Amino acid sequence: MAGTVTVPSASVPSTPLLKDELDIVIPTIRNLDFLEMWRPFFQPYHLIIVQDGDPTKTIRVPEGFDYELYNRNDINRILGPKASCISFKDSACRCFGYMVSKKKYVFTIDDDCFVAKDPSGKDINALEQHIKNLLSPSTPFFFNTLYDPYREGADFVRGYPFSLREGAKTAVSHGLWLNIPDYDAPTQMVKPRERNSRYVDAVMTVPKGTLFPMCGMNLAFDRDLIGPAMYFGLMGDGQPIGRYDDMWAGWCMKVICDHLSLGVKTGLPYIWHSKASNPFVNLKKEYKGIFWQEDIIPFFQNATIPKECNTVQKCYLSLAEQVREKLGKIDPYFVKLADAMVTWIEAWDELNPSTAAVENGKAK
Amino acid sequence: MAGTVTVPSASVPSTPLLKDELDIVIPTIRNLDFLEMWRPFFQPYHLIIVQDGDPTKTIRVPEGFDYELYNRNDINRILGPKASCISFKDSACRCFGYMVSKKKYVFTIDDDCFVAKDPSGKDINALEQHIKNLLSPSTPFFFNTLYDPYREGADFVRGYPFSLREGAKTAVSHGLWLNIPDYDAPTQMVKPRERNSRYVDAVMTVPKGTLFPMCGMNLAFDRDLIGPAMYFGLMGDGQPIGRYDDMWAGWCMKVICDHLSLGVKTGLPYIWHSKASNPFVNLKKEYKGIFWQEDIIPFFQNATIPKECNTVQKCYLSLAEQVREKLGKIDPYFVKLADAMVTWIEAWDELNPSTAAVENGKAK
Repeated sequence: MAGTVTVPSASVPSTPLLKDELDIVIPTIRNLDFLEMWRPFFQPYHLIIVQDGDPTKTIRVPEGFDYELYNRNDINRILGPKASCISFKDSACRCFGYMVSKKKYVFTIDDDCFVAKDPSGKDINALEQHIKNLLSPSTPFFFNTLYDPYREGADFVRGYPFSLREGAKTAVSHGLWLNIPDYDAPTQMVKPRERNSRYVDAVMTVPKGTLFPMCGMNLAFDRDLIGPAMYFGLMGDGQPIGRYDDMWAGWCMKVICDHLSLGVKTGLPYIWHSKASNPFVNLKKEYKGIFWQEDIIPFFQNATIPKECNTVQKCYLSLAEQVREKLGKIDPYFVKLADAMVTWIEAWDELNPSTAAVENGKAK
Repeated sequence: MAGTVTVPSASVPSTPLLKDELDIVIPTIRNLDFLEMWRPFFQPYHLIIVQDGDPTKTIRVPEGFDYELYNRNDINRILGPKASCISFKDSACRCFGYMVSKKKYVFTIDDDCFVAKDPSGKDINALEQHIKNLLSPSTPFFFNTLYDPYREGADFVRGYPFSLREGAKTAVSHGLWLNIPDYDAPTQMVKPRERNSRYVDAVMTVPKGTLFPMCGMNLAFDRDLIGPAMYFGLMGDGQPIGRYDDMWAGWCMKVICDHLSLGVKTGLPYIWHSKASNPFVNLKKEYKGIFWQEDIIPFFQNATIPKECNTVQKCYLSLAEQVREKLGKIDPYFVKLADAMVTWIEAWDELNPSTAAVENGKAK
């Protein structure tokens, strides 16, 4: 019964999917040699490189890639005082790339992520799988036990209401990691040798009302549908916390997707995560987050967005006020974060005037 | 960080797990030759066979199995007038077996289900996997992207609140099917040749607040935790509907598990479902359900159980009244079903007096 999205199944499609509608955003502090391995899959696409740290350093990008690169000086020049909402010395800076992109879709990947192999030994074209995920609907309102019903060879099972089989638009595709799993510092310390070798051949929708830990390592989204919610917060230099940038974005994004009836998928594609970051350094970055998340999670689980918020921007500003009011009591950091959330939306609308005008239903 | 349940990994454990604490319930109308294939896995366990249809027919059970068998005459004799709540000429009759079991765990399987093979070609011990699922906690309150965090080689990912890592008790383990997928009649008709050949190597918790279609073909549960909610309704002979028995049980059970903070898992183990039932016959049984489920699903999505209902029985009786009041408006069938739900609980408590007394907190 389900409409299957027909996409060429070869690893390297002859015409790359969405070639002119997708940007690849990469935050980095080093030469991008990792792109060599991705060349067959990424070369047709445009890259947005967000250089973190010392802006005088030169980042080498392998020959033949089409890219634009922004360092901290560029960010300050383009955003002026609003640059304060973009983190420094933390991969949270990547969200600047989402803001300056002019494309409908964004794929973001870390520079320590390599091409993984599927169980048959074939290289996995992660980008192609993300695109498949984004172009086919999600099923946030009811759980399908055979996983993605739009996938070839699968469908909705008996008992799945027919009125829900059209699904919802997919806003986010969250991919996973073979080799080094995305663990927090305490788990890294307790299980230093754990490697993820289980290839789970599934894509699933995270149900409406359910929060999940969104990792920014291997992530794609529809910028038109959810872009302004993909703010990675204030982390790193001058902030009391790190390594919660993608989590923060994921919680805000999920609450807004639930409100706007948009879908979020997780599962395939896998990338090969090459090396674990230092658990001692990570613990220092994370430890406040480890306490705070015990309050943050119930906050987001109970957050409701007023009915009249019908754009991502309006939803996001509503969330910012709730963060200020409710999480501000935990620590002054959250008041600063709420301010930055507002600044982020102002900056987004400034750089994306047409979308802002259309989405907010008024001329700018 | 997660405690892993250590269970012998051989297909045929030397000491069968929970040998004296688990019954296998099989509804049938034919000789149970299918048990031959399951012999290495099932023979150590006690079987409860619920014979449907003509009670004068003799059902042959292969040698060497330890079993008790109930036909319609037995059901009528044991339950008296309360036998009206047990369906006839429908596999819904299986729930009589849950009621007469004296064990903590129940595994139920259809007689057209055979041993499946994992991708390495090894026979899957479905029962062993169900037991692993039931003996390790669930994670209904927050989604873990690497699936079951209690499984060896997996854990909770970064961003998963530490206060939730103990998980919840697991009440239900829902297994899947290779070969013939569990499709409704319309999907069977549209895709007569579709076979499920995708082995997804995952077990996951169905999140709190999310409903799913529970299939009774390959299912295990903790009778002490959730038994009285596993009523398969009024189906088959004399009823306007069939093939919604397991769905009905699943929806009631899930709402109650959410209320009582119990977990429900789906995924592994797979069984090999040998043959598709006749889609034309199925359509006749299902067609009212196809309409009704459009109202039933929102009903269960919005159902709330009063806080003071602290046993499965009390929760179930509360649901029965809501069914009568709200679904009774759709069709008088639901009033009859609500009556049967009450009768079921009365019969359950009669056959399980100690549990009833303990769970309801009063002497009987």
